[in-house]
Amino acid sequence: MNNTDCPMCRRWEEEKELRVIELPHSYVTLNRDQFFPGYTLLFTKNHVTELFHLDRDLRSALMEEVSLVAEALFSVYKPAKMNYELLGNMVPHIHWHIVPRFSSEPLWPRPIWAGPHEEVMLAPHEYHTQIELIRSAIR
Amino acid sequence: MNNTDCPMCRRWEEEKELRVIELPHSYVTLNRDQFFPGYTLLFTKNHVTELFHLDRDLRSALMEEVSLVAEALFSVYKPAKMNYELLGNMVPHIHWHIVPRFSSEPLWPRPIWAGPHEEVMLAPHEYHTQIELIRSAIR
Repeated sequence: MNNTDCPMCRRWEEEKELRVIELPHSYVTLNRDQFFPGYTLLFTKNHVTELFHLDRDLRSALMEEVSLVAEALFSVYKPAKMNYELLGNMVPHIHWHIVPRFSSEPLWPRPIWAGPHEEVMLAPHEYHTQIELIRSAIR
Repeated sequence: MNNTDCPMCRRWEEEKELRVIELPHSYVTLNRDQFFPGYTLLFTKNHVTELFHLDRDLRSALMEEVSLVAEALFSVYKPAKMNYELLGNMVPHIHWHIVPRFSSEPLWPRPIWAGPHEEVMLAPHEYHTQIELIRSAIR
């Protein structure tokens, strides 16, 4: 169930170099901007927009995947706190922002959106290294 | 299981006038600042800090409560999108920010944290009216 106008429906195909893992109900990709180290996106395979549109079993299974990825990120990056955000005001297709947060950050303890930052792009081998670490922790 | 140093552990007792409903695993209160109409907090009864610290059954039950409240807010306020955020950088005790978002807002479509705003305090009868609407929709 996909929507050709939706960038999230295309993301798994279009950002192959950022793929972390395919789970039963979601795709997981590293966020290209790594200003927040380990910032990961988890988005549903189907084009759905609100948690309460899902049936209970699917919602629970999806949240297990969110929790699994958050725990993996926590184990790899050892942050002070994990942040979990489901917004979708610009792109309504369900995508979770799962972000390790550190007390050493300039924005800490405010939300990641509380101030501007310069985007941090990694070299291809650096994306690969981070992705392998996260993927190993998920498995 | 409470922590006397945690403001979220005290919130249900200290903000009685903002209480919406007690659910099996969480307390639901209206956010005092109603700049974002319908902004609601859902926090766990126990002092826990990460989704992945919960066992699967409790995590699923908690997310059912989040979804129930989000659906109720959606039915009352008829927003463009619901936002769901679990942050906890300042107060780690699990509390979900469940926020109806409208395309008429100055910050739309950015996250609620993307710019400053003047807090909007309601009169007591206005809090009461909003709370009754939400409570009825949850039941």
